[in-house]
Amino acid sequence: MRNICLTLAYDGTDYVGWQIQPNGVSVQSVVETAIQKLTGEKVRLMAAGRTDSGVHALGQVAAFPTNSDISCKKIKDGLIHFLPEDVTVRDVKEVAAKFHPTYSAKQKRYRYVIYNSRDPEPFLRKYVWHFWQELDVAAMHEAGQVLLGKHDFRCFESHFPNKATSVRTIKELTVGRFSGWPIWNQFGALSNEAQPDANGKFICLDIVADGFLYNMVRAITGTLLKVGQGRWSKEHVKNIVKQQDRSQAGETAPPQGLYLVKVDYEP
Amino acid sequence: MRNICLTLAYDGTDYVGWQIQPNGVSVQSVVETAIQKLTGEKVRLMAAGRTDSGVHALGQVAAFPTNSDISCKKIKDGLIHFLPEDVTVRDVKEVAAKFHPTYSAKQKRYRYVIYNSRDPEPFLRKYVWHFWQELDVAAMHEAGQVLLGKHDFRCFESHFPNKATSVRTIKELTVGRFSGWPIWNQFGALSNEAQPDANGKFICLDIVADGFLYNMVRAITGTLLKVGQGRWSKEHVKNIVKQQDRSQAGETAPPQGLYLVKVDYEP
Repeated sequence: MRNICLTLAYDGTDYVGWQIQPNGVSVQSVVETAIQKLTGEKVRLMAAGRTDSGVHALGQVAAFPTNSDISCKKIKDGLIHFLPEDVTVRDVKEVAAKFHPTYSAKQKRYRYVIYNSRDPEPFLRKYVWHFWQELDVAAMHEAGQVLLGKHDFRCFESHFPNKATSVRTIKELTVGRFSGWPIWNQFGALSNEAQPDANGKFICLDIVADGFLYNMVRAITGTLLKVGQGRWSKEHVKNIVKQQDRSQAGETAPPQGLYLVKVDYEP
Repeated sequence: MRNICLTLAYDGTDYVGWQIQPNGVSVQSVVETAIQKLTGEKVRLMAAGRTDSGVHALGQVAAFPTNSDISCKKIKDGLIHFLPEDVTVRDVKEVAAKFHPTYSAKQKRYRYVIYNSRDPEPFLRKYVWHFWQELDVAAMHEAGQVLLGKHDFRCFESHFPNKATSVRTIKELTVGRFSGWPIWNQFGALSNEAQPDANGKFICLDIVADGFLYNMVRAITGTLLKVGQGRWSKEHVKNIVKQQDRSQAGETAPPQGLYLVKVDYEP
């Protein structure tokens, strides 16, 4: 039995999210269907992160067991052929039997993109959170630094308790302004368009952690937004974490600005 | 009676096109509805170009008569408020009573964007024509030059005869490769991301003419594509124009790569 690992990118707009749901089409189901068309086998696909409805992925990682002997190159081409246009395969490789996309992950990287401009932008509505008010990005970044390290993050967890533990370690959290479209360059497929720019209209919140609670990045975004508006201080954010109460933190930012960028595994 | 001129941008994906149709929602109808909500008047909006279903606009121009005395600034803000997220107003100004967006237009600029790469790109599917095969862009540009000037372009007209005359003057036609996303920079709202690049994955076909026949840009794109594939020569394109037969030209390229960029009027 081979264990096949896929790196996937998808536009989450038209999906109920990664996981199979009764109320619509999931990314998991369309990938499983493509695998079945290709290999003839009905598989259960496991993923590194269960992205929500409307959330996008640039580097989701998923794995499935197979008895097929189709080469990785042909699995890639075949799945691309069978997948709808809004889901694609970036990479296919064979991994050890014990590899599990969730449990083997060392860390995950998410990016949340705010389009911070008074001008509406029809072409971005499904790919950013359009926020009109001016935001103090330096203050957002500064306040974000209190979240670094190992903490109980249940203050940012929707529907606590979902997990055995709400303790996670945030390894990196940066908030910056960019000019240029800050998404597709992540693929490596296009050139690097996004340049740090104090007057840029895109605000990117980049977070790397060993794991994420349900809606954690979106709740952190909603919280740091209040700091950007000048309504909350860095100390206030520190207290929110201490109080361990979701109702004290900011609102959950909308899904369309969120991208699962990358999942790292031990080499 | 005032004559109000709007510059509009829209994502054409979810519309049947500019013009009101029985089979779906048109851009014209949503803008007319927004005007009615704002002014209380039922108006008939005239536009510079009737974009087709799936075709986008960065600078469509439309005008309507009104008895309202709402300032241009407030018309802009009000319409943005009432319009759906995929249609927006870039500019509002009062123009002379005799101004007509179609008949007063001196020239229009369209851009057709081909994403020329073997890698699928889920986020671009509604905004470019993804064409996998390698294309000789220099040959496409070169062949495009035979279309410059005043010609009977019925060879590129769908459903001829639509118009009293098929004679148009193409003032500019360039085909080039770009790296960086070549669309939003047109708005001026975002920084200029697209850079001419011989290895870029975006091919832009830019055409300026005094007027365009139905599907003309898309038929020219389909024709120059054959040149890019090495199947047709520059001389062959010249003959297509001479023969005045639509069936001799290339296929109509799909709508989602096409953008009405700008309409110019006499100052």
